[in-house]
Amino acid sequence: MTHPDPAPARPRVRFGGDYNPEQWPRETWDEDVTLMARAGVNLVTVGVFSWSTLEPSPGERNFAWLDEVLDLLHSHGIDVDLATPSASPPPWLGILHPETLPVTADGVRLAAGSRNQFTPASAVYREHALALTRDLAARYVDHPAVVMWHVGNEYGQLDHGDEAAREFRAWLQRKYGDIATLNREWGTAVWSQGYRAFEEVLPPRAMPYLVNPTQNLDFRRYSSDMMLACYAEQRDAIREAGATQPITTNFMGFFPHVDYWTWADQVDVIADDQYPDHSQPHSAADAAMVQDLMRSLGGGRPWLLMEQAINAVSWRPHNLPKSRAQALLDSYQAVARGADGICFFQWRQATAGAERHHSAMLPHAGEDSEVFRTVCALGEGLSALAPVVGGRIEARVAMAFDWESWWAASEPGRPTSLLDTVEQAQRWYRVLWSLGVAVDLVRPGAPLDGYDAVLVPHSYIVEPAFAASLEAAVARGATVVVGPYSGVADARGHIQVGRSPVLLAELLGVSGEEWAGLPSSPTALVPTAAWSSAPASPTASILGERLRASGADVLATFGPGHLAGLPAVTRRTVGTGSAWYLGAVVSDDALASVLTDALTGAGIAGVLPDLPAGVEAVRRGDALFLLHHGDVPGRVTLPRPGRDLLTGEELAGEVEVAPGRTIVLIEGDHA
Amino acid sequence: MTHPDPAPARPRVRFGGDYNPEQWPRETWDEDVTLMARAGVNLVTVGVFSWSTLEPSPGERNFAWLDEVLDLLHSHGIDVDLATPSASPPPWLGILHPETLPVTADGVRLAAGSRNQFTPASAVYREHALALTRDLAARYVDHPAVVMWHVGNEYGQLDHGDEAAREFRAWLQRKYGDIATLNREWGTAVWSQGYRAFEEVLPPRAMPYLVNPTQNLDFRRYSSDMMLACYAEQRDAIREAGATQPITTNFMGFFPHVDYWTWADQVDVIADDQYPDHSQPHSAADAAMVQDLMRSLGGGRPWLLMEQAINAVSWRPHNLPKSRAQALLDSYQAVARGADGICFFQWRQATAGAERHHSAMLPHAGEDSEVFRTVCALGEGLSALAPVVGGRIEARVAMAFDWESWWAASEPGRPTSLLDTVEQAQRWYRVLWSLGVAVDLVRPGAPLDGYDAVLVPHSYIVEPAFAASLEAAVARGATVVVGPYSGVADARGHIQVGRSPVLLAELLGVSGEEWAGLPSSPTALVPTAAWSSAPASPTASILGERLRASGADVLATFGPGHLAGLPAVTRRTVGTGSAWYLGAVVSDDALASVLTDALTGAGIAGVLPDLPAGVEAVRRGDALFLLHHGDVPGRVTLPRPGRDLLTGEELAGEVEVAPGRTIVLIEGDHA
Amino acid sequence: MTHPDPAPARPRVRFGGDYNPEQWPRETWDEDVTLMARAGVNLVTVGVFSWSTLEPSPGERNFAWLDEVLDLLHSHGIDVDLATPSASPPPWLGILHPETLPVTADGVRLAAGSRNQFTPASAVYREHALALTRDLAARYVDHPAVVMWHVGNEYGQLDHGDEAAREFRAWLQRKYGDIATLNREWGTAVWSQGYRAFEEVLPPRAMPYLVNPTQNLDFRRYSSDMMLACYAEQRDAIREAGATQPITTNFMGFFPHVDYWTWADQVDVIADDQYPDHSQPHSAADAAMVQDLMRSLGGGRPWLLMEQAINAVSWRPHNLPKSRAQALLDSYQAVARGADGICFFQWRQATAGAERHHSAMLPHAGEDSEVFRTVCALGEGLSALAPVVGGRIEARVAMAFDWESWWAASEPGRPTSLLDTVEQAQRWYRVLWSLGVAVDLVRPGAPLDGYDAVLVPHSYIVEPAFAASLEAAVARGATVVVGPYSGVADARGHIQVGRSPVLLAELLGVSGEEWAGLPSSPTALVPTAAWSSAPASPTASILGERLRASGADVLATFGPGHLAGLPAVTRRTVGTGSAWYLGAVVSDDALASVLTDALTGAGIAGVLPDLPAGVEAVRRGDALFLLHHGDVPGRVTLPRPGRDLLTGEELAGEVEVAPGRTIVLIEGDHA
Repeated sequence: MTHPDPAPARPRVRFGGDYNPEQWPRETWDEDVTLMARAGVNLVTVGVFSWSTLEPSPGERNFAWLDEVLDLLHSHGIDVDLATPSASPPPWLGILHPETLPVTADGVRLAAGSRNQFTPASAVYREHALALTRDLAARYVDHPAVVMWHVGNEYGQLDHGDEAAREFRAWLQRKYGDIATLNREWGTAVWSQGYRAFEEVLPPRAMPYLVNPTQNLDFRRYSSDMMLACYAEQRDAIREAGATQPITTNFMGFFPHVDYWTWADQVDVIADDQYPDHSQPHSAADAAMVQDLMRSLGGGRPWLLMEQAINAVSWRPHNLPKSRAQALLDSYQAVARGADGICFFQWRQATAGAERHHSAMLPHAGEDSEVFRTVCALGEGLSALAPVVGGRIEARVAMAFDWESWWAASEPGRPTSLLDTVEQAQRWYRVLWSLGVAVDLVRPGAPLDGYDAVLVPHSYIVEPAFAASLEAAVARGATVVVGPYSGVADARGHIQVGRSPVLLAELLGVSGEEWAGLPSSPTALVPTAAWSSAPASPTASILGERLRASGADVLATFGPGHLAGLPAVTRRTVGTGSAWYLGAVVSDDALASVLTDALTGAGIAGVLPDLPAGVEAVRRGDALFLLHHGDVPGRVTLPRPGRDLLTGEELAGEVEVAPGRTIVLIEGDHA
Repeated sequence: MTHPDPAPARPRVRFGGDYNPEQWPRETWDEDVTLMARAGVNLVTVGVFSWSTLEPSPGERNFAWLDEVLDLLHSHGIDVDLATPSASPPPWLGILHPETLPVTADGVRLAAGSRNQFTPASAVYREHALALTRDLAARYVDHPAVVMWHVGNEYGQLDHGDEAAREFRAWLQRKYGDIATLNREWGTAVWSQGYRAFEEVLPPRAMPYLVNPTQNLDFRRYSSDMMLACYAEQRDAIREAGATQPITTNFMGFFPHVDYWTWADQVDVIADDQYPDHSQPHSAADAAMVQDLMRSLGGGRPWLLMEQAINAVSWRPHNLPKSRAQALLDSYQAVARGADGICFFQWRQATAGAERHHSAMLPHAGEDSEVFRTVCALGEGLSALAPVVGGRIEARVAMAFDWESWWAASEPGRPTSLLDTVEQAQRWYRVLWSLGVAVDLVRPGAPLDGYDAVLVPHSYIVEPAFAASLEAAVARGATVVVGPYSGVADARGHIQVGRSPVLLAELLGVSGEEWAGLPSSPTALVPTAAWSSAPASPTASILGERLRASGADVLATFGPGHLAGLPAVTRRTVGTGSAWYLGAVVSDDALASVLTDALTGAGIAGVLPDLPAGVEAVRRGDALFLLHHGDVPGRVTLPRPGRDLLTGEELAGEVEVAPGRTIVLIEGDHA
Repeated sequence: MTHPDPAPARPRVRFGGDYNPEQWPRETWDEDVTLMARAGVNLVTVGVFSWSTLEPSPGERNFAWLDEVLDLLHSHGIDVDLATPSASPPPWLGILHPETLPVTADGVRLAAGSRNQFTPASAVYREHALALTRDLAARYVDHPAVVMWHVGNEYGQLDHGDEAAREFRAWLQRKYGDIATLNREWGTAVWSQGYRAFEEVLPPRAMPYLVNPTQNLDFRRYSSDMMLACYAEQRDAIREAGATQPITTNFMGFFPHVDYWTWADQVDVIADDQYPDHSQPHSAADAAMVQDLMRSLGGGRPWLLMEQAINAVSWRPHNLPKSRAQALLDSYQAVARGADGICFFQWRQATAGAERHHSAMLPHAGEDSEVFRTVCALGEGLSALAPVVGGRIEARVAMAFDWESWWAASEPGRPTSLLDTVEQAQRWYRVLWSLGVAVDLVRPGAPLDGYDAVLVPHSYIVEPAFAASLEAAVARGATVVVGPYSGVADARGHIQVGRSPVLLAELLGVSGEEWAGLPSSPTALVPTAAWSSAPASPTASILGERLRASGADVLATFGPGHLAGLPAVTRRTVGTGSAWYLGAVVSDDALASVLTDALTGAGIAGVLPDLPAGVEAVRRGDALFLLHHGDVPGRVTLPRPGRDLLTGEELAGEVEVAPGRTIVLIEGDHA
């Protein structure tokens, strides 16, 4: 990270949103900047979808309007995150160069009329995007409004066409060197798939039956890398033009088509778009996990909430609104979990186009509206949170998560399609969230030093480096908890031969020989005396393993059924360290019991004891955040008296937290 | 309407069906006409699917069989509705001219083997169809059997291919003149969709994400217009050949792909195909609404039920049969609601092809069958209804319905996909139907003179002319009731800026700033004292609005939830006029209460008071129709004594209506 | 059958599985043969997916590894079923000859990366496959290990592309001779589908609406025949090379795309792949029906269970494991029902490719595993069953089943999609299975001599030969039971005109005029006095017929509803023969009652009286098989004392059969 943080010298929380002035008449712009200033907006993203305005015909440049926009914003003290418009090429690009259009696995070439109609594999697309990026950078690199660069938008476009075939082959050649190696690593002897040359290899297109899983897995890797190359060449062009501002692009949480671990050190600031679905019961915890992912991708550095919605989105089949309380909670939660900037899509609500019903900071009804009043209230609140800027979160717990493993575990031809890597991670995370325990997400194989507990909810792939780091952790006294169906495959997605999880079996003191789908009605688990805190009726479902303990204590066995009497939950003790294994997808109560026991054993407690349901507690830097997502008032005993940054109130002892309220407490001396 | 009605000098109800003699050996024809005569059939549609028989190879003409068919029918006193066979080109057309075949949004060119494999955009298709039409008209224009012309069949074929692209562009050029105008009206500045020329514009094909809604909306308009052009050029050719008979084509009720408001004055007689699904609880009311639509499309003139099924259809996944009572009710209901002709698909049940299991007047089992006896009974009944022919229905209530608004409201990227324009109209209509209140469907913007109540269940688009007509109605003392999520957009589908419904807010005395999806469990409505007839526990679901009353009385507010305490139902009184607004999709009981109150306030009552459940009451001309769709006998008090045309019975005072019975009462003097 | 059975001189049950050594390093092979020998494996199928290994580039031959494999196997006493590898061409074939790739109805050309990417219509594909087959046969025809030949694998690949169009037309020309005949037989006068020449006819591709059902039906016939031609030319090539071993391919039970009646006499041994889904309640009976189909396809000869899974499969969304008891039951059941060989897919579990999670005889965990111990136990058990080899099953009951009728009944445009031919056959079969009554499946039209009862659960097509055989059966005193919606159509799928079932109405003494979908809540059946054993509350659902009895006794009428009071179940008595008709899909209890009565009337009883629930009883040759699929111990009284081949135990009188147990009793003298 050689480039500056987006936060300026005087610390303040960044606040604003996407601003698309080219969609509005000139007179609107004045109202925009006036209302932005009133709301406390200090950062807007400009130009994300401006390609056809900036380059109305090939090679033409239309920068005058942008000059005026940037000057106007700057004159009102509003900084700019300037975007390269490469996410949505103008229709002329696809008309003149059909090969720039993406092609589905079924061979359908996607047309203009929406957005994203490009393949990252197309050199023609990339050259056009790059030429415009260079001119944009040259013109605005020194503009005083520009404090950040935003390359493209939500990279995620897949392509299975001939352009992709060419680049995929080149990627494979770089990876494997020769075709014999590819044949071996892909296991092409199965089903007679041997290739004579890289020229014969195709992206996974429509096929008569199940695809070769390694082919699919490599195509996912290639696709992520191909998009990263698009990003990187634009970033480099901006840097080459002399830019000193940070350069980034916006991530999308647990987005399935991009491996953000490989992208994270290619952006100067982690930025993320977050649209939690609050019709789901666990949305607050799930959103928190996304935010912890972002913090973890950046190695703990503050990140930017680049896009969210102030009210409803419009792309779900049914879109629930956000109350003001919810909108504030969503934003403060992000600050609590490391965000130094809170932005929205978008500033002014569109009247035309596919997002005309997507909420915005300034709604169709105008400034005299609940939404705009919420925006102003948020601007004020964020302004009060300036002391938090730059603060870090300390976590003693690590949770492993990996895109490659998720991908490999999602390939067809598996014991069950009911077990999803992210869903299982969410279930584990919710336990920690409700306890107020901070957790870092870690890439398998990364060092685990400093963590007292390491959780592995579901890591289908376990490579030697990861196994070694887990062993080292236990050896130095840490607690490791591994979930079912882990350690199944290697990085190629090939099953590891032997008793599973092959590379972890010795560490765990238990090994298996079968991953068995469980029947639709839950299977009882029978706790042993060793599981003192077992819930009343723990069960397993979805998947269970045929295990044999060799060194581990058995905490529970399977009740009647295919695995009756065999170990289901085990714990091996190694000095002060311990290694737990869950040989089944266990019920929520069982999971909570296991994780609570494991954390307690590792000497880890939450930020506050006995959190009321729905109250989230996080320490960031000097601040203690309490956010109440529930709908029943809760009482919390503060460890030390302090001052609430949002209200200025002095708080001490037992305080009532109203539903929807956020308290940001600066305790004692810091206050 | 310069052309004669299909009804001849001596009034009689037309009765018959599609007749496809080319599918049967010659000897069968004699049995056909004998049995037709026995059943009272007086009109058959011939030639709908005869193209490959009439023109077995390009340019060839094979009319001899048709000469014989028409002569035979005429000799038995059966009139003919002669069809142009353009709905189903022969396979050779697609083989010789693949560009005549329709293409899906995914680029799949549809093949022969079914029917409808043409694109209306193809000049080659149209020339072939037209040439045959000209020859057909020239040959039969003076044939004494031919009393009507039937162009094509159930126009509804979409095309997204290159032929369509060419015609769509031409249509757009005619509409917008220059590309800059299109760019503005389509809002192409959103998502970088700016076009340089019409040549770059495409039909909405498969895209990476949501389509530009105005592009989609214009494509729907173009598609309807393109099909209308196909119809019109054949109609003109028939007329040019000297035809004096009425010319029409068959509509399909609330068919989503054609705007029948723009078609209605292009046909001499409104004709409709109706296949109600009686497995649905409200099928009788829903069928009535379709019939009122047909009457309204024709400006109140009698219409033709061109196709229905005498028993089961075969194209649903599971097809329930019709009892004789149901078959009679379906037909008499159409007469009650303005039909002067009752026809079926088809005369003789096919033994081959895709409709071999679709019921027909003469089933596989032959004349000794329940179905054929039902047909004969119906023929007899319709014959008795001759006095009704030409009769009109008087309605004091208008209900707005518009295809364009339906289309725009259906575009993706909206608050909820659970609110459908036709479904909401059906819910409103059912209230009127159960009250026995006659209603005309009106096109928004049409004059509303003479209506004492105007209902607007859901009009997503409200243009100034429509707003003005509603204002004028209230000003002259009428009652207007507007449903939720109305007045959202203009004709481009762009959201109207300001407090909604922008053009109606002043009239309604209430305005809104948010269309909010409601949670899946219903939201309570809290009636105020002003809503005296409120039901016990009214609720709202799907969508509610954030409203502020300014001049209207608040009849109900929202209970706990996102909109708690805010107005949900309002009524503004303007002299003797009143303007109601429903700011939510309200429960059936609430809707019935509101509409009943509004009608009562407007001095409107049903044909008969206190109709038993399931009994439909309609006045057409001098006749009072009572149709019992329920399954429990009901008692009705007749306003005046009279004679039942169907039984000849004299009826007076309280009469019992048996389930399935139809009474057609000619009262007092008329009887 | 001029060729020898796969069973060698010394009778033994064949035992083994697919063996794919080319997927493993050489050193693994030694372990393989050692463990095979330990498990008692005596037959493995080699080479199914070896094309790209055998012919890594066009025309190249790489046989050395196969030489070694065959020698190694032979040296360990393991016989080989040698496969032609034509099921999965190498990628180079599709790259060099794209026309060899199959095309979907939507025009999507399927790519390599899976398997099966060929069209049987491609001469290029067939030539390549044939050339390799010839060389393979020439090389190994005399190899002592090779005891059987296995052509291709699971034939089932459809193609709708231009290659298929050419071959389909040729097939049609052979069938119909001239286009006028095709037009008549396809009913192309419906919907204007008249063809001028065979060159205009296409496979059923994507169309605007429902396909011509006869076109679809003929395409199914053509597809089955086209695949058979592929099989047959390879078989002939092997025979021409001098092979004396039996040649076969593997069937897939009630597979919808191949008519195995036309294939059965083209294979020397019937071989089948069976993957019952034991999450379904009736899987044991359904599996038994598949096995009886295989026995019947072979005219009663022993058959081979060519593929099954020892534990879970991996291609369902959720895959339940098999217990050891289940694995043994599945295998012994096949032997009970005529199998002389029990094989698995596959020997060693793959670690790569789409089937890496499909269970295998030697799992990832290795020999120290429950699965491998099960394999060894099975090997031992099968070895004890040698006395059963070659034994036949005698059935006095025939059940009609036909692919053509199933296909025609599945065409769109029908009364209901809820009535499936195979599902109805399964319902009938389950009654017989639970009674322990042996049944042969017969092709309609085949002689029915020797059967005392003939069941026709659902035969949509009834041709004159079938009707005549049923008449003859009744005439000679047999009992015939015909299910609803039978005798509807002729072999063209055209509806037969007249009262249904036209060709059977006289025999049955009842005739109908309507096939009516029944409402979703069951319709009561009202038994008459003639149905003495009627259950308490019989019902009908899905479909009922409007019947009129003329000679038959009415056993039940329909309760309230569309068919109220009309006959639903009838029986006509003709001398000692009787003909039953079920005019509705009746409830399980009603069906059991009817079939039990009918069998009793025909003097047919089960192998044992009063079988406990879940206990299957079969006599094969001298052996009485008792297999307990339930989970509650059952008691059975043995008719005669005997010895259990599996345990060596002497058994007599009442014995308890434990859940999961199989008893193979050799009674009295034979023992």
